[in-house]
Amino acid sequence: MTTPHTIPSNTASIFDTQAQLQQDYNNVRAATLELCMPLQIEDYVIQTAPFMSPPRWHLGHTAWFFEMLLTRFMPEYRIHSEEYLFYFNSYYEGFGKRINRQKRGAVSRPTVQETMLYRSRIDGHMNILIERIPTHPDAPEIMRLLRLGLEHEMQHQELLVYDIKHLLANQYVPSEQATMPKSAVSVEGEVEFAGGLMQLGTNAADHLFAWDNECPRHTTFVNPFALDKRLVTNAEFLEFMRSGGYADYRWWLSAAWEWLRSEGIDAPMYWERTEDGANAEKAVWNIRDYRGLRSADNNEPVTHISYYEAAAFAKWRGKRLPSEAEWEFAAMQHDSAMAKNAFPWGNAPVEADHANLFENKLWCCSEAGSFAASPQGMYQLIGDAWEWTSSDYAPYPGFTTQFDEYNDKWFVNQKVLRGASYATPRMSVRSTYRNFFAPSDRWMVSGFRCARTLAG
Amino acid sequence: MTTPHTIPSNTASIFDTQAQLQQDYNNVRAATLELCMPLQIEDYVIQTAPFMSPPRWHLGHTAWFFEMLLTRFMPEYRIHSEEYLFYFNSYYEGFGKRINRQKRGAVSRPTVQETMLYRSRIDGHMNILIERIPTHPDAPEIMRLLRLGLEHEMQHQELLVYDIKHLLANQYVPSEQATMPKSAVSVEGEVEFAGGLMQLGTNAADHLFAWDNECPRHTTFVNPFALDKRLVTNAEFLEFMRSGGYADYRWWLSAAWEWLRSEGIDAPMYWERTEDGANAEKAVWNIRDYRGLRSADNNEPVTHISYYEAAAFAKWRGKRLPSEAEWEFAAMQHDSAMAKNAFPWGNAPVEADHANLFENKLWCCSEAGSFAASPQGMYQLIGDAWEWTSSDYAPYPGFTTQFDEYNDKWFVNQKVLRGASYATPRMSVRSTYRNFFAPSDRWMVSGFRCARTLAG
Amino acid sequence: MTTPHTIPSNTASIFDTQAQLQQDYNNVRAATLELCMPLQIEDYVIQTAPFMSPPRWHLGHTAWFFEMLLTRFMPEYRIHSEEYLFYFNSYYEGFGKRINRQKRGAVSRPTVQETMLYRSRIDGHMNILIERIPTHPDAPEIMRLLRLGLEHEMQHQELLVYDIKHLLANQYVPSEQATMPKSAVSVEGEVEFAGGLMQLGTNAADHLFAWDNECPRHTTFVNPFALDKRLVTNAEFLEFMRSGGYADYRWWLSAAWEWLRSEGIDAPMYWERTEDGANAEKAVWNIRDYRGLRSADNNEPVTHISYYEAAAFAKWRGKRLPSEAEWEFAAMQHDSAMAKNAFPWGNAPVEADHANLFENKLWCCSEAGSFAASPQGMYQLIGDAWEWTSSDYAPYPGFTTQFDEYNDKWFVNQKVLRGASYATPRMSVRSTYRNFFAPSDRWMVSGFRCARTLAG
Amino acid sequence: MTTPHTIPSNTASIFDTQAQLQQDYNNVRAATLELCMPLQIEDYVIQTAPFMSPPRWHLGHTAWFFEMLLTRFMPEYRIHSEEYLFYFNSYYEGFGKRINRQKRGAVSRPTVQETMLYRSRIDGHMNILIERIPTHPDAPEIMRLLRLGLEHEMQHQELLVYDIKHLLANQYVPSEQATMPKSAVSVEGEVEFAGGLMQLGTNAADHLFAWDNECPRHTTFVNPFALDKRLVTNAEFLEFMRSGGYADYRWWLSAAWEWLRSEGIDAPMYWERTEDGANAEKAVWNIRDYRGLRSADNNEPVTHISYYEAAAFAKWRGKRLPSEAEWEFAAMQHDSAMAKNAFPWGNAPVEADHANLFENKLWCCSEAGSFAASPQGMYQLIGDAWEWTSSDYAPYPGFTTQFDEYNDKWFVNQKVLRGASYATPRMSVRSTYRNFFAPSDRWMVSGFRCARTLAG
Repeated sequence: MTTPHTIPSNTASIFDTQAQLQQDYNNVRAATLELCMPLQIEDYVIQTAPFMSPPRWHLGHTAWFFEMLLTRFMPEYRIHSEEYLFYFNSYYEGFGKRINRQKRGAVSRPTVQETMLYRSRIDGHMNILIERIPTHPDAPEIMRLLRLGLEHEMQHQELLVYDIKHLLANQYVPSEQATMPKSAVSVEGEVEFAGGLMQLGTNAADHLFAWDNECPRHTTFVNPFALDKRLVTNAEFLEFMRSGGYADYRWWLSAAWEWLRSEGIDAPMYWERTEDGANAEKAVWNIRDYRGLRSADNNEPVTHISYYEAAAFAKWRGKRLPSEAEWEFAAMQHDSAMAKNAFPWGNAPVEADHANLFENKLWCCSEAGSFAASPQGMYQLIGDAWEWTSSDYAPYPGFTTQFDEYNDKWFVNQKVLRGASYATPRMSVRSTYRNFFAPSDRWMVSGFRCARTLAG
Repeated sequence: MTTPHTIPSNTASIFDTQAQLQQDYNNVRAATLELCMPLQIEDYVIQTAPFMSPPRWHLGHTAWFFEMLLTRFMPEYRIHSEEYLFYFNSYYEGFGKRINRQKRGAVSRPTVQETMLYRSRIDGHMNILIERIPTHPDAPEIMRLLRLGLEHEMQHQELLVYDIKHLLANQYVPSEQATMPKSAVSVEGEVEFAGGLMQLGTNAADHLFAWDNECPRHTTFVNPFALDKRLVTNAEFLEFMRSGGYADYRWWLSAAWEWLRSEGIDAPMYWERTEDGANAEKAVWNIRDYRGLRSADNNEPVTHISYYEAAAFAKWRGKRLPSEAEWEFAAMQHDSAMAKNAFPWGNAPVEADHANLFENKLWCCSEAGSFAASPQGMYQLIGDAWEWTSSDYAPYPGFTTQFDEYNDKWFVNQKVLRGASYATPRMSVRSTYRNFFAPSDRWMVSGFRCARTLAG
Repeated sequence: MTTPHTIPSNTASIFDTQAQLQQDYNNVRAATLELCMPLQIEDYVIQTAPFMSPPRWHLGHTAWFFEMLLTRFMPEYRIHSEEYLFYFNSYYEGFGKRINRQKRGAVSRPTVQETMLYRSRIDGHMNILIERIPTHPDAPEIMRLLRLGLEHEMQHQELLVYDIKHLLANQYVPSEQATMPKSAVSVEGEVEFAGGLMQLGTNAADHLFAWDNECPRHTTFVNPFALDKRLVTNAEFLEFMRSGGYADYRWWLSAAWEWLRSEGIDAPMYWERTEDGANAEKAVWNIRDYRGLRSADNNEPVTHISYYEAAAFAKWRGKRLPSEAEWEFAAMQHDSAMAKNAFPWGNAPVEADHANLFENKLWCCSEAGSFAASPQGMYQLIGDAWEWTSSDYAPYPGFTTQFDEYNDKWFVNQKVLRGASYATPRMSVRSTYRNFFAPSDRWMVSGFRCARTLAG
Repeated sequence: MTTPHTIPSNTASIFDTQAQLQQDYNNVRAATLELCMPLQIEDYVIQTAPFMSPPRWHLGHTAWFFEMLLTRFMPEYRIHSEEYLFYFNSYYEGFGKRINRQKRGAVSRPTVQETMLYRSRIDGHMNILIERIPTHPDAPEIMRLLRLGLEHEMQHQELLVYDIKHLLANQYVPSEQATMPKSAVSVEGEVEFAGGLMQLGTNAADHLFAWDNECPRHTTFVNPFALDKRLVTNAEFLEFMRSGGYADYRWWLSAAWEWLRSEGIDAPMYWERTEDGANAEKAVWNIRDYRGLRSADNNEPVTHISYYEAAAFAKWRGKRLPSEAEWEFAAMQHDSAMAKNAFPWGNAPVEADHANLFENKLWCCSEAGSFAASPQGMYQLIGDAWEWTSSDYAPYPGFTTQFDEYNDKWFVNQKVLRGASYATPRMSVRSTYRNFFAPSDRWMVSGFRCARTLAG
């Protein structure tokens, strides 16, 4: 059992420079387009399910965000098109009317080419605005919002990966082959933690960027607990399925049981039976990916799992899901003054090893990151899958909204996920990052590990 | 009041020839593509409403129909793709599983280009099959189904016009201008008919083609009636609206009243208020078309009207909708042995005058046809709008199904429309043609004229 | 084949007298209460399905109808309660707001006792009003509306039977036994009719009462046809089921096929499998009645059948449903000047034989009526089950509304049923009566017989 | 600011005796019936909304619970009726099939009288079983389940109050007058708490009874906070409404905003506009209660509030809702060894002052309890309204299920409420009690007070 620890105080803040912002801006914007390289024009405009958005919408929406900046800080800028404003706003009530989310795939204009031109026009103006920063009276606010826009765009990069996966996985005739994102570790068992008082979350001043929902750093108490060293694998989840797990009400939350039955769910998303089997015990399963069907790799983490399924598995296993405080307790770098800025298990090696999302022109991370254990011996804490926690997505004590309509309007009926998936842009990975989804969502790259309470 | 009349017997049948079929095949197939000329690739794949289909789907589905022929009559033909079969089947239970209609816009593949290639491949094989007809053991069946396939494709041409209109009308920034389909006649009043015994419908042998639902020709009795000389106009319908027609339950069928309120309907489809007006009396209306908003032409027939709205207007006016027998009684050419084969008011002038659907590369008919009166003095019987009748879509006495799952499975909850719209291909216009839609449908080009019962 | 016939002109009208009205009023009102005798207080207030109404609602609604008369013609009458008006109005927009139909079972007040008192109060005042008729300035209108109110109440008596059946059939442990309404005839085969011109419908002046939708009597033409001598039986319908009829799309209208699958229907209403059988061929069926489960009598007419099921059976059998003109052609008494007033096969014997609905304190008719054949040799034309026809419920030529919001607002999406069921009050049975329901309805006592078109 | 404190260890457990159980059994069972005294038979069987249950169902269901005990522990006991089992089970998958919750009002049998007889029969047998306890081999388990059954029945007593209120409030003509449950305190301001480590929850052994979800007592850390001395009042909530609160998206969670608009909500449940006002600022409001409409008392706590509305108000006020740990921190009796067993502010006075739920034959508590402040100066902690907290309903660290399908299957999408309402039976009030409802529920007696985070 590892011992408790003291929390270092933060001694330095990190500030953006104009040069850094300009470089990041152009890199991030280019990366978004790179993600779309496998797409045909037709793919950009359709909506394969109510929860996803057409790729063209992501392209336009992330440009729209920066157009809002231009409107405010560049006096000579003229709105590109009122209609684009309507179509590319997502859910911001403060910015006027917008298209119903489920109708995003019912509109074919602006065309892909027009959307690309829109992005280019915004990029041209944004570069001018960035160059004006040194003499601009609103420089700090511009820099703050610019950084915010980049973080926002990186969030949409991850959503793009999910949406492109759903788009292509549901289509027939995948013609190309690609290296699959993969991670498999052979460790077993759990790590025990003594718990105690800890500092949860972070302060914005300690980072190039942190979301308001991660702040402020505050004291909390964690009871003694144990956490699995690695994520639950496909093989383990299949064992649950074969034992009749999806048909036994005892493992399921009441809301989950209703969801199972109304949706007719009996496997993780993207899993498909290859042998007809009303018989759950004998069914053989393949997994559909953005390149077609493949047989499930036993040692890979199970992904595209809802909170409901994760919780059912854990109960079946006699365990439970960890709270986000437990997850962060286990992920923290306890012996460094810069713990919260670094990746969980130390700065240098991660910088070198962590997957480049765009390395091979598709969204796979290398496997290196996943194999590196944290000092406490935890594996797969980032770069494989977001991990469901039992924590409700709610404000930390002392929370103050920094962004209108961004994070705080979602503070109900959502569960927190921690870590990062293979689709998360490296620059936005942070051990204090609080991702959140509804308990029934599973089109994102979500997995989980099990926890257990220890006697105090 | 016109007098009753005797029914001529048919003295000649009309047969297709191989040469005629080949010419028609290639013309009809080309016309389908021509209709799509205004579209961008993005437009081909989206679904703007559950009732419409993506244009690419129409292109593939009409090819799929001929592929079924090839599969049956050309031994060396190999199915192009199992997946295409799944996607391009419409509602034929007999041809296996198919995509849910409302999901047609959730699929981006095959791409437009792939679909075009599919059409080309089918066309190549079909031309070979057609050339084999003279020596083919199944020549009559092939010829019959080939003609059926062309009629089927022409039906989809009309649907394509509706769907493209819905697609482009709902989009912003229409940039081009086009001549509008228009028809305005200045006549007023009604024509009185004595009624009596008549022959309703036709026999297949009298035509190059007739649908089974138009057959057989049979005796029926029509009571004395009067029919308006022309279709109800925008101006007349606006008068109904301004008198509070949409808010007065007295004019509406019970099902219509529920429909109005659950859908929030207070005007024909594509009409948009330009001045805010909770006040129905003062509202000013524009009509959205495939080229944008335009002010309503007072003398044009009102179109995109549901049966419910047509029936409400007629009741408000103290009239009613005609039955299909009354409509056909009024449209028949009573002094010609070829009456049923010809257009309603005689063969020659119509041939010359009737709109060429594709004349100006868009789907507008010329205005000539509409101005030509029938011998009885009826205007706008074809070429303007399909006309709602009060007749339930039901089989004629002696009806025999000729086509599996084509017409007879719709014999309930549908109303018959007669005539033809500006979007109807000329070759399929026939005075006995029975079109049918649900009473709440209105995305097709539907209008109506009023009738009245005369004392016997 | 029977021969055509001439239509007698009506030589006499029938007028109500004050004395007759008073007697009928008190009899009809008492009969309504008699129907409720098997009920507990709890039964009066619940709603077992959206299509049914709580018995207490019927009691109050039929009183409400007469209260509207009192309000208009008895100056000193004061409304019993504004709240009752709200609750007991059914669908009359003209009489103000009313409770949503599907919420009728969400209200427990007024209590049953209060509703009974309401009825009594109305009855007291109505008897006074009736006595004033001889000297009342509005006597004719009062007499007309009073007769209408009685017909209206008898319609609700039949609905009460349906609703009580649904109420008690769905409950467990029926403890009492009762004689079942039954009808079984052993005839087979069909009767052929030459058709020709006929007079369809009736004129109001020929009856004590006729609905506006039965009027006016008008000429129509019927092509030669054959009609089954009797209704389709349970045994025949079971044969259809065992042949896989519910699983074969070929027999079903498209709307019917969707209905089957969305509702999960595989048998007539009230039929229940006794042996588990996914296997349609081997399933054994019982029928649930208002007194519990009983085994299906093979020779009884199949009832609680939707139009969809009737049409599917007929198609499977290679036949079709009759039109309402055909039904009336076959049911008419062709040699009597009073044909339209009498029961189909002659006046006297029917008067004697026809079932007294209330005879044994429950709603069973005696079996006598059913066995009496019409002169043409048709059986079971009335008193067993309403018979689905293929005719859309639409106005007759020359139709004029007599009753606001009563019959004409339903002229769409409904099919006509002819005859009368064992639950129809004797006084309202008429061979020209046009009953109507939506094609998917089946909680009423509906059956059918098959027809066939003969070569002309 | 109050200071932190030490947590006393529990020195004594409390055990039931057979005599105590028998007395409690008969008292609790009688109290359930007493709650139904204002009802007519008709009221017992209907369902006024999907979330409520007919009173008769509560009567039967609570008997069913004890019947499960009899089946297990009294060998000679025979099931009263299989059908009752089906109808009176609520949501226990482990006890077989059951009626769909929303259909509970579609069944009229068993009648009220039959249900009463069922209860009596169960009571007779239960008294025999209780007398056998001293010599029964399963005595401890029987005693445990008996106590559980009583707690279960008291929960249903509170639900009965909610459901009867909904039943009678929605009905017209309330004819009797009754004293209203009322509570109004004139204090203002907040109490500040230093926070720190605390013991949250309790251990079962410390009570006559505690639910598994309140256990185990465990350490947690609370940051410094301030809590309002009293509940938010009608007057304060009205101020929020008049300021346009329901129309301003800024105060609402995203899910709440959707809920508002889809449900058309603009006031707490049971509030009704007396003056027509699209104008929120000028509307005058009454509150509908189980005895009719009354004008809102300004100083009463606002109740029938959803979590969404409570959270919106708090954000508008610049505050937030408390966590359940904060609530319990403020409610704890800090200087007593029996703190957790007692009412928050000491044992003796509460025993005397607290409302007797059944005192005046209706469910109003006296006002005394509410006026008694806790030692920290908090008012209205119990006896007025359940208070929404920001805490997700989730298991405490170390949680172990004690009851199959009772508490743990609800551990998602629910918020915890603390305290007790005027409808809560006195015997089940406990400062550690965790009530829970979905964030949109508001038919229970729910209110709230505001909290604020203090600088650490």
